[in-house]
Amino acid sequence: MKTLTVSLNDRSYPIHIGNQIVSQRDLIRPHISGNQVMLVSNETIAPLYLDKIMHSLDGLDVATTILPDGEQYKTLDTTNRIFTELLQQRHNRSTTLIALGGGVVGDITGFAAACYQRGVPFIQIPTTLLAQVDSSVGGKTGVNHMLGKNMIGTFYQPQVVIADTSTLRTLDDRQLSAGIAEIIKYGLIRDAEFFEWLEKNISALLERDEPSLSYAILRSCQNKAEIVAADEHEIGQRALLNLGHTFGHAIETGMGYGSWLHGEAVATGMLMAAELSARCNMLDRASVDRTRNLLIKSRLPINPPSSIKPEQFLELMSVDKKNIDGTLRLVLLRDIGLAEISEKFSHDHLKAMLHDCQQQA
Amino acid sequence: MKTLTVSLNDRSYPIHIGNQIVSQRDLIRPHISGNQVMLVSNETIAPLYLDKIMHSLDGLDVATTILPDGEQYKTLDTTNRIFTELLQQRHNRSTTLIALGGGVVGDITGFAAACYQRGVPFIQIPTTLLAQVDSSVGGKTGVNHMLGKNMIGTFYQPQVVIADTSTLRTLDDRQLSAGIAEIIKYGLIRDAEFFEWLEKNISALLERDEPSLSYAILRSCQNKAEIVAADEHEIGQRALLNLGHTFGHAIETGMGYGSWLHGEAVATGMLMAAELSARCNMLDRASVDRTRNLLIKSRLPINPPSSIKPEQFLELMSVDKKNIDGTLRLVLLRDIGLAEISEKFSHDHLKAMLHDCQQQA
Repeated sequence: MKTLTVSLNDRSYPIHIGNQIVSQRDLIRPHISGNQVMLVSNETIAPLYLDKIMHSLDGLDVATTILPDGEQYKTLDTTNRIFTELLQQRHNRSTTLIALGGGVVGDITGFAAACYQRGVPFIQIPTTLLAQVDSSVGGKTGVNHMLGKNMIGTFYQPQVVIADTSTLRTLDDRQLSAGIAEIIKYGLIRDAEFFEWLEKNISALLERDEPSLSYAILRSCQNKAEIVAADEHEIGQRALLNLGHTFGHAIETGMGYGSWLHGEAVATGMLMAAELSARCNMLDRASVDRTRNLLIKSRLPINPPSSIKPEQFLELMSVDKKNIDGTLRLVLLRDIGLAEISEKFSHDHLKAMLHDCQQQA
Repeated sequence: MKTLTVSLNDRSYPIHIGNQIVSQRDLIRPHISGNQVMLVSNETIAPLYLDKIMHSLDGLDVATTILPDGEQYKTLDTTNRIFTELLQQRHNRSTTLIALGGGVVGDITGFAAACYQRGVPFIQIPTTLLAQVDSSVGGKTGVNHMLGKNMIGTFYQPQVVIADTSTLRTLDDRQLSAGIAEIIKYGLIRDAEFFEWLEKNISALLERDEPSLSYAILRSCQNKAEIVAADEHEIGQRALLNLGHTFGHAIETGMGYGSWLHGEAVATGMLMAAELSARCNMLDRASVDRTRNLLIKSRLPINPPSSIKPEQFLELMSVDKKNIDGTLRLVLLRDIGLAEISEKFSHDHLKAMLHDCQQQA
């Protein structure tokens, strides 16, 4: 087992990464201060891992909320269901919430913890690759609004993140690839060496080779922990983590939540960002090709859905959180491993790129 | 005009208290950094003061959300309505929310600001006495759940509080008295001298004598600002501000939100707390009588509704935020001006008190 720390003064916390650690009582118990626990999971994950965790929680007053599985349930209504369970079970401000599942469960549970009685502690036990390398770390919590993804939420840090690589064995192939998209992102924005490693080891990751997966998760979390420690509230460099996300969120919102997986939309969005960067003479063509090839090898989609017209894309992108005073801002690439936030790209290039992508789809 | 400061390091902010200051452009504009503003008010207040504030916001991109008036609308659904307006108007992370109204508008708007795109700045312009002396100061934001009042929310501080005493001229008598309840609270929990002043000046307050109201608001805000600066997240002494609130919330939730005004429920709850304190030999009978007399003179209710049976009271009180691990904790009085949090009161006395109160109602 490896342990990293997200350094945020009195809100610092450990990330434990290892094989078969989900049932290790000594990793969880020190982070539960009261005697009440609300474990939140979904219908897919609960049958697989709930028992293992319950074993670690013996002697505590444990309630569970099992949500339906899917991005379309990441809503205020679902969050309210957790509040109702908490109140019906008489959970007070000394309760601890545990998120057992992928990014959707983690984001909703973290948001519920941030808002229940104005804030109770919570623990992240991510069971998808995407949640282990990205969404469970850094304290972004929240839900979707019909008009925009992740538009409702808070920054609220967990007490601990426990990433058990053995849970990835039961992950379906599509979810595995979606997680690899966020791993590739770290290579693209700030870690060229890691990007090269991924080019060489992508087959091993897809075959779920445990040492390769562990290394990729560790290196991803190292990158994320460094960025979050430097810029918790996304005033500066943390926004680089949104490479591909402005395009990706437009796809997710435009297609209806749950149609594309988040990682799939981000993969396509990253290639769109690379393509726009090349058209703006920021990035060389060879780097765009390397990006495209790695995404294809990772079995990820690279073309946006043809049903979203360029004008609708622009409309959906206009509510993005990176925008300031109505000016569209995007994460673009200067090189593999070097990203920047820019509002000074050519809008003609953007429109032409959206148009051409649609032709290819 | 008087100005106080709530000292919270980088989240410190001023409270301006004065007559006819709502339209003073120089009080608002320094706290708006972007060019987008969402002004939230309700159907009662908007017709009276919206124009005056709009004048101070000229040149900015101002949208408005006008909510129905009443505690029964302090819900997640209403908050979502603000999110929808913000997204439809393409408001991004540089927008500023302004709450123009009483406690309900302030609590919802603050919560919406805390959660929109993970946090945007907001300004409090309280127009009821209760909001000016209590709810607009200190960063408690949130909404009610069917099963418990203020159970969903965050700590999130405003940029500035602008309390214009001229707005109290249009306040109805019941709302005025409800505000006085929270003013009396400061006297009871920590300011015996102020309590004596209130005993002498209650008639002037009820007659809306401007200097008396200004003094009462200023002294209340001083008390609140001191407590909040010492204990922002209610780990310790801030909980004393909840004197009467555990009983009061039970009344509000049990009767249906909007039936009793919050200040009315708190008034009754404070007398119940005083009565219980006396039965537990913590407080002398003379102090209970002084409390009762001042509440009666303030035209506030002192008996809980007979329709809530003692068992239901206990049930409703069991979800209170002050409770830890299932143990009921209450704010009780040692003297006028001296309160404490206690879980070591006699539950037999509590039940007998609830029973006797019901007989009187």
